[in-house]
Amino acid sequence: MRRMKMMVPAITIGVISIVGLVVAGVGVVSGQTSQAEKYVPSYTADGKLNFPAGYREWVYLTSGVDMSYGPASNMGKSMFDNVFVNSEAYKSFLETSTWPDKTVMVLEVRAAGSKGSINKNGHFQTEELRGREVHIKDESKFPGKWAFFSFNSEGPGELFPKEAACYSCHEEHGAVDTTFVQFYPTLLPIAKAKKTLSATYLNEEAVSGAEKKEEKAEKK
Amino acid sequence: MRRMKMMVPAITIGVISIVGLVVAGVGVVSGQTSQAEKYVPSYTADGKLNFPAGYREWVYLTSGVDMSYGPASNMGKSMFDNVFVNSEAYKSFLETSTWPDKTVMVLEVRAAGSKGSINKNGHFQTEELRGREVHIKDESKFPGKWAFFSFNSEGPGELFPKEAACYSCHEEHGAVDTTFVQFYPTLLPIAKAKKTLSATYLNEEAVSGAEKKEEKAEKK
Repeated sequence: MRRMKMMVPAITIGVISIVGLVVAGVGVVSGQTSQAEKYVPSYTADGKLNFPAGYREWVYLTSGVDMSYGPASNMGKSMFDNVFVNSEAYKSFLETSTWPDKTVMVLEVRAAGSKGSINKNGHFQTEELRGREVHIKDESKFPGKWAFFSFNSEGPGELFPKEAACYSCHEEHGAVDTTFVQFYPTLLPIAKAKKTLSATYLNEEAVSGAEKKEEKAEKK
Repeated sequence: MRRMKMMVPAITIGVISIVGLVVAGVGVVSGQTSQAEKYVPSYTADGKLNFPAGYREWVYLTSGVDMSYGPASNMGKSMFDNVFVNSEAYKSFLETSTWPDKTVMVLEVRAAGSKGSINKNGHFQTEELRGREVHIKDESKFPGKWAFFSFNSEGPGELFPKEAACYSCHEEHGAVDTTFVQFYPTLLPIAKAKKTLSATYLNEEAVSGAEKKEEKAEKK
């Protein structure tokens, strides 16, 4: 088991932005007992979200490595982000290609290793957890239906204020219902087929496609 | 939906080696219907393993990027590998830190994207499937208890002959029962605590630790 106490500066990584995240004492082994039963989100009296302890047994959506939406951030070490969603929401998405109320997505950030055991190249995931965030849809609780929470431990997580960059970025760029389905390889084809891609995403893709065509034409 | 037909040369990637894998017509969207119920492996009359169609709803273990155990392989494009295990085997591992009979692990290889949607750096996973392999424990069926199968589609998969490099590599380097638990960040601490790490792995780690100490001493 590893423990660490560190500051990560304001960065944007993976599918959810991590703003000034303080990681203290994470790295506790989760999943020691099986907790795959239906997850019902619950909150503390002061509005924190209780930690979704069984999320490693939820449905995996994707991983990224060192993803960023601005200039490359150099944190001295590569990082993976893994995204999980509760099973009930996943099953509903397969049918409808939209997210039901009480959808919970967990973003888990882990430090990458490179040389270790017999591995000599590329990157693998290590025990070193760098943070966890939740994107939750709870329609009756949040004015914008969705909210973000940050977890520094397996205790209750702090709500991101609605001015945080994650809200506007997900609103403006999320392919389906403010979520980054464009990065979820098994869900994107379903959203295309069922035509639930957002107007803003489709517009962005059209503009980016036109720009690529222009670049090609200039090169000729 | 993407379709491709290509040859990947003999490479070792992720936790299972892919030997001369012919990927033809993969990229079929799986998980269109929910198949999370208990998976029981079944074989065709000629010894092929039927495709574990619901594996994307199994328990996720880890992902790697461009991992290799020899010199870096340049395939022109980065690749992710994702590893899933059937839920029953995972739950058993949490209790015992060993794999029960009928453990099934799926290695899924996907091409990485870099610039796409709002992402500008790092890598994300794409719809482009490059291959899938299964590592299965079926004690009464295979002399070495475990076997590897390769899938080029969602039809039955071909058994790797027992001379294939994957068998000897997993035997010699797997941290627990011929599997690469050293790369599964949530399982490794359990294996350490329950002392189920293999003698060969522990020996390798001891040698590698001693070498690192020597290197440090020489630098001083």
